[in-house]
Amino acid sequence: MAQLPLKHLFALPDDVIYLDGNSLGPLPVSAPARAAQVLQEEWGQELIKAWNTAGWMGLPQRVGDRIAALIGAPAGSVATGDTLSIKVYQALAAALKMRPDRRVILSDARNFPTDLYMAEGLIDTIDKDYELRTAAPEDVLGQITDDVAVVMLTQVDYRSGRLHDITEITKAAHAAGAVTIWDLAHSAGALQVDIDACAAEFAVGCTYKYLNGGPGAPAFIYVRPDLVDTVQPALSGWMGHDAPFAMEPHYRPAMSTERLRVGTPPIVPLSILDAALDVWTGVTLDDVRAASIDLSELFIAEIERRCPMLSLASPRDPDQRGSQVSFSFEHGYAAIQALIAHGVIGDFRAPDIMRFGFTPLYLDRTDILTAADRIEKVFRDELWRDPQFHRKSRVT
Amino acid sequence: MAQLPLKHLFALPDDVIYLDGNSLGPLPVSAPARAAQVLQEEWGQELIKAWNTAGWMGLPQRVGDRIAALIGAPAGSVATGDTLSIKVYQALAAALKMRPDRRVILSDARNFPTDLYMAEGLIDTIDKDYELRTAAPEDVLGQITDDVAVVMLTQVDYRSGRLHDITEITKAAHAAGAVTIWDLAHSAGALQVDIDACAAEFAVGCTYKYLNGGPGAPAFIYVRPDLVDTVQPALSGWMGHDAPFAMEPHYRPAMSTERLRVGTPPIVPLSILDAALDVWTGVTLDDVRAASIDLSELFIAEIERRCPMLSLASPRDPDQRGSQVSFSFEHGYAAIQALIAHGVIGDFRAPDIMRFGFTPLYLDRTDILTAADRIEKVFRDELWRDPQFHRKSRVT
Repeated sequence: MAQLPLKHLFALPDDVIYLDGNSLGPLPVSAPARAAQVLQEEWGQELIKAWNTAGWMGLPQRVGDRIAALIGAPAGSVATGDTLSIKVYQALAAALKMRPDRRVILSDARNFPTDLYMAEGLIDTIDKDYELRTAAPEDVLGQITDDVAVVMLTQVDYRSGRLHDITEITKAAHAAGAVTIWDLAHSAGALQVDIDACAAEFAVGCTYKYLNGGPGAPAFIYVRPDLVDTVQPALSGWMGHDAPFAMEPHYRPAMSTERLRVGTPPIVPLSILDAALDVWTGVTLDDVRAASIDLSELFIAEIERRCPMLSLASPRDPDQRGSQVSFSFEHGYAAIQALIAHGVIGDFRAPDIMRFGFTPLYLDRTDILTAADRIEKVFRDELWRDPQFHRKSRVT
Repeated sequence: MAQLPLKHLFALPDDVIYLDGNSLGPLPVSAPARAAQVLQEEWGQELIKAWNTAGWMGLPQRVGDRIAALIGAPAGSVATGDTLSIKVYQALAAALKMRPDRRVILSDARNFPTDLYMAEGLIDTIDKDYELRTAAPEDVLGQITDDVAVVMLTQVDYRSGRLHDITEITKAAHAAGAVTIWDLAHSAGALQVDIDACAAEFAVGCTYKYLNGGPGAPAFIYVRPDLVDTVQPALSGWMGHDAPFAMEPHYRPAMSTERLRVGTPPIVPLSILDAALDVWTGVTLDDVRAASIDLSELFIAEIERRCPMLSLASPRDPDQRGSQVSFSFEHGYAAIQALIAHGVIGDFRAPDIMRFGFTPLYLDRTDILTAADRIEKVFRDELWRDPQFHRKSRVT
């Protein structure tokens, strides 16, 4: 697999191999100029008029359409803004309304905590006999019983990279009469998603990982087009109103995905995200996914050969995992700190996961081999010889 | 009243008198450099490490503390992030939990729509017999009966500028056993607020008006310090968890205002807001308020003398209004467009309100007289003589 010719679009520090784009994507080269333009020309010179003259009012939808194209969704089906946690709450509240006679939210016990927390908060708010039921990831399919209102899952496990089968699970959920919500936090921009084809009702995601939108960048929510006009927004803010500036006394949702907007859109981070999405012009997710698998297979082979003390914690079959590879290691926290000090940036997730992301937009095989050299050296020269090792690792 | 020596801190276009800081504050001179620093040095060079090395993790609280100082709240009592609509929902959901035996949310019919809409959405989500009761602003006090769970009001009316008496209404609410939520959207940075002294349970606000944080800048929420540890967050996101990175299976709220945080904080706009808040070093809200009254009194006198076709729609007593002055005029929309074309930027709110904000951080008496000259000229030379006038005004 040839390197994707996109590395020049990112501003990466010298001598750093960045294997943490699954947590925070790097800075796109075009972002600072776009931010400066929004601040100095649009906000600074146009002031309040910029909502019209600089197209701010339409920005959330324009960015949503660009994200839609990356997850197999039609234009007009993705709303942007807020955070992923808020979008999970929106999707879940709307989904429960669609199955008023059922009381179970099914998720998996390895889901990213905020998805589960938001479900707990919603249940507590509704104050009825709802149940958040969690199964082991591999048992989810068997747990989709006919009391389940909503199946809410993250496609790619944030620790192991394990993939759920969106198509199969959505089909099973529909057969049981349940609504599905897919969290695409580790999917969007990492692998092919065809959300429209699998007929899931909702999808949500963040944009600061593989979409490189920057720290805390706006989130997104997809709703299946045929449902848009009947979805009931719990977070019924004025920007989701059919006529926000008519200042009507009662909420009346827009007859479009716009009804999933809430408050005033965050123009600066949406603009930076818009600039970051320029990267995707002329590259397909097929190419990105193929290159990502090539890099992660190389990484696994090199690490297993050089560092036998690390145990692969991701599925070995690349078709069963997302764009990241995790190894478990008892002193993983200390090891990640040592790697960072040597210019290989991965991250740690409790209790013992060393996590590495492979984003071929800005990584090539040479980078992977360099990273493997450094990792081998750190493990050989430092950790095992360091008398402080066990004490250091207690920082976890 | 001398001009506040702060005009140089803002980047205003030449030959524009900006009377719309009540809608979107202008660009602080320091903001572009701060944004460039966050993007290029922090995000670009530090990447994921910046959450620690650049202090991103603590940024929401640091900014919250600076806002707290402007609304009479102690450090540690204000959380930042999300939008005002979301913060209204959070406050309202928590407040209703505090009065489980009551079913009425009392507001005023002139409240900003999104506050009422969010209440409608919450009631619909809870799906019980809650009632959103709205009174005329002047009747609110008399409507605080002992079935009211929550009194939720915006201190400064967004159309007329009319002020509610926070102290008196909060006292009456407490006497009737109700919880109070104050929306300070048009208060924070405009006039003295002593939220702690009046003992209101919650306050919320946005930062893109008088705090000049930029379009769609993060919102804030205050909770009375003695209540922090018992407030139940409906939007229970991971950043409000007591140990976000422990990835615990169940939500366990932070024992601080942090529990009102939800998702990953928006670092770029929070940093721009932080830069914008530097403006407040060395200026008191007493000075700002006195100067604002001086400017608005001058404006009213000049406009009433020069433009008798405009009717004052704000309270005449400056102690009864916020930092804006509104005039009603049948063809207000067309008139505002004409004024903008002549370098006086105010805004229009349906059905007939011409709205002008007076923010002495960057306005002085000379600006007001220049604005009055231009407004007089527009009304004398253009509108009344323009045969297209009535047709144009139908754009509303």
